Amino acid sequence: MTLKKILIVSGTHGNEINPIWAVNQFSKQKNIIDKNIEYKFTIGNPLAYEKGLRYIDTDLNRSFNLENNPDQSNYEINRANFLIENFGINGSEPCEIAIDLHTTTANMGTSIVMYGRRRKDFCLAALLQHKFGLPIYLHEKDINQTGFLVEAWPCGLVIEIGSVAQNFYDPKIINRFLIIINSLREEINNLKNNLIKLPKELIVHLHQGSIDYPREINGNISGLIHPERINQDWKLIKKGDPLFLDIKGNTIIYEEEEFIWPVFIGEVAYKEKNIAMSYTKKEVLYSSNEWIEDFLSL
Amino acid sequence: MTLKKILIVSGTHGNEINPIWAVNQFSKQKNIIDKNIEYKFTIGNPLAYEKGLRYIDTDLNRSFNLENNPDQSNYEINRANFLIENFGINGSEPCEIAIDLHTTTANMGTSIVMYGRRRKDFCLAALLQHKFGLPIYLHEKDINQTGFLVEAWPCGLVIEIGSVAQNFYDPKIINRFLIIINSLREEINNLKNNLIKLPKELIVHLHQGSIDYPREINGNISGLIHPERINQDWKLIKKGDPLFLDIKGNTIIYEEEEFIWPVFIGEVAYKEKNIAMSYTKKEVLYSSNEWIEDFLSL
Repeated sequence: MTLKKILIVSGTHGNEINPIWAVNQFSKQKNIIDKNIEYKFTIGNPLAYEKGLRYIDTDLNRSFNLENNPDQSNYEINRANFLIENFGINGSEPCEIAIDLHTTTANMGTSIVMYGRRRKDFCLAALLQHKFGLPIYLHEKDINQTGFLVEAWPCGLVIEIGSVAQNFYDPKIINRFLIIINSLREEINNLKNNLIKLPKELIVHLHQGSIDYPREINGNISGLIHPERINQDWKLIKKGDPLFLDIKGNTIIYEEEEFIWPVFIGEVAYKEKNIAMSYTKKEVLYSSNEWIEDFLSL
Repeated sequence: MTLKKILIVSGTHGNEINPIWAVNQFSKQKNIIDKNIEYKFTIGNPLAYEKGLRYIDTDLNRSFNLENNPDQSNYEINRANFLIENFGINGSEPCEIAIDLHTTTANMGTSIVMYGRRRKDFCLAALLQHKFGLPIYLHEKDINQTGFLVEAWPCGLVIEIGSVAQNFYDPKIINRFLIIINSLREEINNLKNNLIKLPKELIVHLHQGSIDYPREINGNISGLIHPERINQDWKLIKKGDPLFLDIKGNTIIYEEEEFIWPVFIGEVAYKEKNIAMSYTKKEVLYSSNEWIEDFLSL
């Protein structure tokens, strides 16, 4: 294995501040470079961070469709270009792997988000799921949501940790990020040295779509997340289960036959995207040596 | 007792949305007017609410120093003028009492905030403390924080409920607001009809000052709220208790001899005010018939 460079991005959303603290703390440690793996660190959206906002013009983590959007007056489009020119695989300080650190106001715990079915990503996600038992949210084929940061690197994952309020530093959340970041090198080295094997199966929650809040004709939200649904991310919903509660106290139920597993329930950042929750189905992936080969050949 | 008009203000901070829902739900009830008490409802800062922001130009709940700040280009100053011209005691729809509903990201539970020592406020606060056992935060003489909305009415209280994330609708929080709003009329009527007496004592937490985060020379925050302090609002701190945790893991302790009771610990909205927490001391006030007389003569 040649030297791998891992780009750790925090503050891709400027109001998700715990990863920034964690990375700052991590980068002050000694011995964070060895002969196999080197870390680079960057704050994704420094101006939004300074202002305590998710973004300035558009969501940076939907701005990596660079061909489609050459708007040079848009801060995040420029920032996406800058990050690729600097840390992209053909950039001035090329990195093969991008790890993008996020927080949720939803009660999702620690999870991995993967975009599309790249074997290198599967390998890395399998290492983390094996070690920590983290749920994996596999996001693909949603034409309403594209242009994610890690897709612009040959291999990359998002780590989401919550719940934590936007712009609030929580030491518990910071510690969870530090554990993940600290583990990456060790797990990769172990894999390289044949000290661990991938688990045979990888369980993923496959993104299926999103459910908006009930709304009035004027667009105002007319139903709350039902109390039985709040904080119940990753937990099965079946027909008849409550979803929302309207202003008269009526319950709006889930009416489909298919079982679903909701995530990002009541996520504050997604209200503007008309998402009250996203929903997934479970899928089992069977690991293969090609995942490892592809990953180690990065 | 003549007809009293109570102004219920929600959304004074545009990202504190649960009171807006609660008031909307409450106002749809029948029989909310009786011969003694009538409610008026208004959204304090409708533009900030629409944008999901605390405020547009300046904090509306610090904008009621009208003599000092005649800036007509400032949205909140204009809005403060508008509210007084409409609902002030000399306004077109005059109200004697203002109840201003807020949420906190800090874990303060339900509490009452009072500004200064007005006997009418004491009476109303005593009714609510008697019924619900709510803590009372008495805010006075802080030259760094003035111009609160309720001070512009002859009688008025803030109700704070938390913790809840900004811009997130939480049915539990909404229910707590509904309980308080629903109780006001009943309690006032009971007082008038001599069905309840004020408690002899009123325990208040008297605002003493605020503590900023540790900061680097450039202003960046360099210490987190200590894990032992998070969510410990209203709980005694004594010399040697931890306050903050710096990036190297060092604990910064409280070094004064005096016992204090902190509130608004880690409140997200107060970061920009350089407040990591405020602190109080306890004081016992002895109720008097004058409180009731003053209140009933409103």
